Amino acid sequence: MKYFRENIEKAKGYKPGIQPLQTDDVVKLNTNENPYPPSPVVLQAVKAVSPDQLRRYPDPLANAFRKAAAEVNDLSADNIICCNGADELLTIAFRAFCDRKHPVAYPVPTYSLYPVLANLQNCSAIEIPFDSEFNLPAKLTGTGAALTIVCNPNAPTATIVSVNELASLADETAGVLLLDEAYVDFAEENCAALAKNFDNVIILRSMSKGYSLAGIRFGYAIANPDLIAGLMKVKDSYNVDALAIAAATAAIKDRSYFKETIEKVKKERKRLTEKLRTLEFEVPDSFTNFLLAKSRTYKASEIYDKLTQRSIYVRYFDSPGLNDKLRITVGTSEQNNKLLSALKEILSE
Amino acid sequence: MKYFRENIEKAKGYKPGIQPLQTDDVVKLNTNENPYPPSPVVLQAVKAVSPDQLRRYPDPLANAFRKAAAEVNDLSADNIICCNGADELLTIAFRAFCDRKHPVAYPVPTYSLYPVLANLQNCSAIEIPFDSEFNLPAKLTGTGAALTIVCNPNAPTATIVSVNELASLADETAGVLLLDEAYVDFAEENCAALAKNFDNVIILRSMSKGYSLAGIRFGYAIANPDLIAGLMKVKDSYNVDALAIAAATAAIKDRSYFKETIEKVKKERKRLTEKLRTLEFEVPDSFTNFLLAKSRTYKASEIYDKLTQRSIYVRYFDSPGLNDKLRITVGTSEQNNKLLSALKEILSE
Repeated sequence: MKYFRENIEKAKGYKPGIQPLQTDDVVKLNTNENPYPPSPVVLQAVKAVSPDQLRRYPDPLANAFRKAAAEVNDLSADNIICCNGADELLTIAFRAFCDRKHPVAYPVPTYSLYPVLANLQNCSAIEIPFDSEFNLPAKLTGTGAALTIVCNPNAPTATIVSVNELASLADETAGVLLLDEAYVDFAEENCAALAKNFDNVIILRSMSKGYSLAGIRFGYAIANPDLIAGLMKVKDSYNVDALAIAAATAAIKDRSYFKETIEKVKKERKRLTEKLRTLEFEVPDSFTNFLLAKSRTYKASEIYDKLTQRSIYVRYFDSPGLNDKLRITVGTSEQNNKLLSALKEILSE
Repeated sequence: MKYFRENIEKAKGYKPGIQPLQTDDVVKLNTNENPYPPSPVVLQAVKAVSPDQLRRYPDPLANAFRKAAAEVNDLSADNIICCNGADELLTIAFRAFCDRKHPVAYPVPTYSLYPVLANLQNCSAIEIPFDSEFNLPAKLTGTGAALTIVCNPNAPTATIVSVNELASLADETAGVLLLDEAYVDFAEENCAALAKNFDNVIILRSMSKGYSLAGIRFGYAIANPDLIAGLMKVKDSYNVDALAIAAATAAIKDRSYFKETIEKVKKERKRLTEKLRTLEFEVPDSFTNFLLAKSRTYKASEIYDKLTQRSIYVRYFDSPGLNDKLRITVGTSEQNNKLLSALKEILSE
């Protein structure tokens, strides 16, 4: 059977992190979910569902959310497009800008979905390595790519590049610069202003991490209205559902709950970083809700296996530059303590 | 600014039907929503939402739904892929099978999204006209298309082609045959069996029409496991959300509510068809939840405008073969009566 396009036949597909059945014993620190529940107003919004909301098509543009997100980001609604998780906007961007003659470029290591999408779109991927301190590679300008992606803060390194450096990059980039800010809620600054000042910048946001809404699949992008209008042509007309719009709109409006949750994660992040360092892990300062940790004394893959045996799930990437490290989501104090106890045990074996 | 690919720059984008603000006066018969609410168990499933369901990533394969849909269709779960509305599966199929060298083919008139997706994927679209009675065109075999799509029952004609004819077509088609059964819940037979007997057949289903769930965006496709595995590689990993999975699974399991609702729609469809015929409309027998009606006495576009002025929304397509007709969703008795009264008024002017 050879029905699929050749690039699809050859594709391996993206492998998401394991989703173990949730029991009290499982400590799940492998897919960067927020350990705290979403705002109570989100549950209220979902529980207020009406039969008509289910029966009728949703607003194709999700204007209620666009308006709320515009206020939060000090922009207007026509600067915003909503998507079925930030991943969908990445797919839309590849379809909008890339093909055989129009490559994508991004620094590596980074989010492992980018090369998967490049292969699906059959465009070449220009991968420029970060230096050992994860500074923005100078070679990223002048690649001639139609689409340049910088994940910032970056996954899985947890590091960040400054707004000023990205402004220079936007200025020097001939094609579109997409800044994937899925984790920016846990950082001290973001690039929203660049979407106002540059006609080639797209800022991508997720409601999965900062707003604890990974289950409903909702993201949005910020850009000038011309770029937004073009992306709108590529998206499925009803790409976000009525309940997701209600939940995401309620979540982004509850600013005080959001800020509280972020502060809790940052506090635990600081504590977990320090404790891991005392266990002889190298841990760069994180600007996300996860840590990239390298043991000075023990093989990462062995630690990973031994944690998994204890029902503690972290993420291990078997790829160059990453196979000596573990990516660990910042959990609740209780989860982090269980992880730390287990690590102490494992490392003393 | 020329950031987009040329085909995207030129694209006009798909125009969904108008979604007027719902008030008591509005009669909305323009986007083929089911006029009856979803099963009460669906609302229960949504209202039972837990914070963890929102906080954590959903099951990437939506196995709870796959299992339920497999039972209903007498297949196994690995014959099924879930999608964010049937539209998403169409997008996935174009990306999986079509490109510049691999065209799509379909009979026309049909669902107006197909040429939009062909343009986005930059593949050529081979359009074969139906005859005046909407029989399957013989020329549909031998097009050499990588993907052949037959919407069956067809939109916007409401007509159907028999399973036997489609089995012959599957047999004679070298590429993939996708049977878009979005409206099949309102017909007397479906093509699920063809997905078992042919390795090149994909059956596409929607939960929007028969199950009254347009708001949550949920569809699924049936095919042999090899085709399903290939399509899985193309979809976003978390393409359907946790609440949508819960709602769709509850809906498809409630067989008695489903059958009741379908019977109510069919009964109103029969009555509306007869009444329109007495008002001198030509109305082919419908196998869907809408009618394609052509007035013998009045211009379709004028009727459309005059209905809209009365807040009665139907669909008018300004394209060859369709611009003398109106597509009218079968509503509740009350809605249909309002439509019929308005038509009587308009036609006697």
